[in-house]
Amino acid sequence: MPPPVIQSLDDIRQALQSLPAGDAEAAAKAAEREPQLTKPEGSLGRLEDLSQWLCRWQGRHPPAMGAPKAQVFAGNHGVASQGVSAFPAEVTAQMAANFEAGGAAVNQLCQAFGVGFSMDALSLDRSTADFTERPAMSDAECVDAFVFGMGTVSDGIDVLCLGEMGIGNTTSASALSMALFGGGAAEWTGAGTGISGPALDKKTRVVAKAVGLHKDPDPLQVLCRLGGRELAAIAGAVLAARYRRVPVLLDGYVASAAAAPLEAACPGALDHCQAGHMSTEPGHRKLLDELGMTPLLDLNMRLGEASGAVLAVAILKAAVACHTGMATFDEAAVSDKT
Amino acid sequence: MPPPVIQSLDDIRQALQSLPAGDAEAAAKAAEREPQLTKPEGSLGRLEDLSQWLCRWQGRHPPAMGAPKAQVFAGNHGVASQGVSAFPAEVTAQMAANFEAGGAAVNQLCQAFGVGFSMDALSLDRSTADFTERPAMSDAECVDAFVFGMGTVSDGIDVLCLGEMGIGNTTSASALSMALFGGGAAEWTGAGTGISGPALDKKTRVVAKAVGLHKDPDPLQVLCRLGGRELAAIAGAVLAARYRRVPVLLDGYVASAAAAPLEAACPGALDHCQAGHMSTEPGHRKLLDELGMTPLLDLNMRLGEASGAVLAVAILKAAVACHTGMATFDEAAVSDKT
Repeated sequence: MPPPVIQSLDDIRQALQSLPAGDAEAAAKAAEREPQLTKPEGSLGRLEDLSQWLCRWQGRHPPAMGAPKAQVFAGNHGVASQGVSAFPAEVTAQMAANFEAGGAAVNQLCQAFGVGFSMDALSLDRSTADFTERPAMSDAECVDAFVFGMGTVSDGIDVLCLGEMGIGNTTSASALSMALFGGGAAEWTGAGTGISGPALDKKTRVVAKAVGLHKDPDPLQVLCRLGGRELAAIAGAVLAARYRRVPVLLDGYVASAAAAPLEAACPGALDHCQAGHMSTEPGHRKLLDELGMTPLLDLNMRLGEASGAVLAVAILKAAVACHTGMATFDEAAVSDKT
Repeated sequence: MPPPVIQSLDDIRQALQSLPAGDAEAAAKAAEREPQLTKPEGSLGRLEDLSQWLCRWQGRHPPAMGAPKAQVFAGNHGVASQGVSAFPAEVTAQMAANFEAGGAAVNQLCQAFGVGFSMDALSLDRSTADFTERPAMSDAECVDAFVFGMGTVSDGIDVLCLGEMGIGNTTSASALSMALFGGGAAEWTGAGTGISGPALDKKTRVVAKAVGLHKDPDPLQVLCRLGGRELAAIAGAVLAARYRRVPVLLDGYVASAAAAPLEAACPGALDHCQAGHMSTEPGHRKLLDELGMTPLLDLNMRLGEASGAVLAVAILKAAVACHTGMATFDEAAVSDKT
């Protein structure tokens, strides 16, 4: 179904209270077929769970993986002026152009796995405010980006890979995660694009300062104050996907942090999402623990731009191929257990 | 180059002493290109390592992944008569027919990822001897199966996925691993196709007894006495692949155990191999530790039949797609580090 019209943070809160449930009947059909397939019960491990999960959140059996899509949002961050990244802020726009020209890693991965690709740059000429001084976004700016993200999700997508590009946004992810789940800044802060030593110490102090300024019991307020436009857009896309029966693969630390306020505001709000992979960012592991998610891949990646999520599409394709294509014990005349 | 002619265990020993080295120049070319690509250095993690590894063992740069192949060997085990499996021994032949009809999990995975598939059944009408009583194979039988496996590997395969089917063969894998690397039978023995309780206790005792009878300082003797035809064929295919510059993805516990005698006889003999995935068999984790291998996937799978290796082809395809297709910083006019 189409998601409700959102014009304010309150509208988001309300939408979270009336989230569509998963399709238990479709999931049950998958669970019923699985033991009939020519393999020892449970021997395909997570592939079997994923088939059921896809059925539950696509709302159908058999599940389909013919039309996966990757959606990347790009945004600029005021906090980048604090020197928290190894790259200058203009790289966000340069990489956005690289996505459009097809030269980025995610383009190659989408091509390799037959995944549709779309990238939207959100006001790159105008970074968010530096959240070491004031909220990154006003409520209205955050809602605008959230609604933009919602609008990118249409019916008919089999799985949506959500990713981002934005110099400075692992600082945002760290601050957002810490504000939501507590702990110390050092536990949530990592190398990002590749900083270490004094630069990493500085980033950690920036995160601690930002959380001290903006910590708030309301997860959506935390998203406004410590997030960024691309993070708000990801959160919006996650919400819209739930209404439109589109399962979601979250990419790395930033995408997971962007979605986290929804779960913090409404436990279960991310049940239609899987973590595509585990990033090397130390905060990502901690965040996925908080969200109760087990990543599908763990390959020491930390690129963002939906790369880990798109790679995980291969796992979902494998799950659906086995679930739908395998012969049953009866069909193949294979003896079941002794 | 073609592998040497093998007619005896001694010929195998000699072939292991003159294994072709990897192509350091091709690997260096990959290492040189990687930092020029539009991403923070190292941010593709293992994908970057895999590109170099493929170059080293394919002997070329750029690496290619257009022609991956899965090779499954099937064999029957005398020890199956001890009741060590949840399935009867006739399932080996029934599943071999299922592979040929295209109904097994591995068939769906090969189709999903564009992987060629071949299955060879090795004398299924005649199981190996029960190794709780006598050696599973004579030296000559073992060499025959080894040579058969070698013959399945041709030039021009970009990566070879090796897997197996054989009721009773996790018992063989456990005994073989324990005989090579020590430790207790319980550490090496697991549920296989799905046993527990008294049946698992029985399997563990069978493993302990077999190792007591057949432990030998010569790894190739261990393969003869505690292996099986499909295991010897896998070992042969691994050796031939090294000579033919074909990198190898090993599937689960049984495939890794089959290759292990080569590494035990000649450290470095498996440098052209990666572990496709981590099985839920507890012995597999221990074995990969002994072999110094970090699996590419960990999805609670325990099916065998090359399924985990074929799934890992997706990771290699991703690595090559990024390494060969991405724009450089210069090409995309993206600023490098500050």
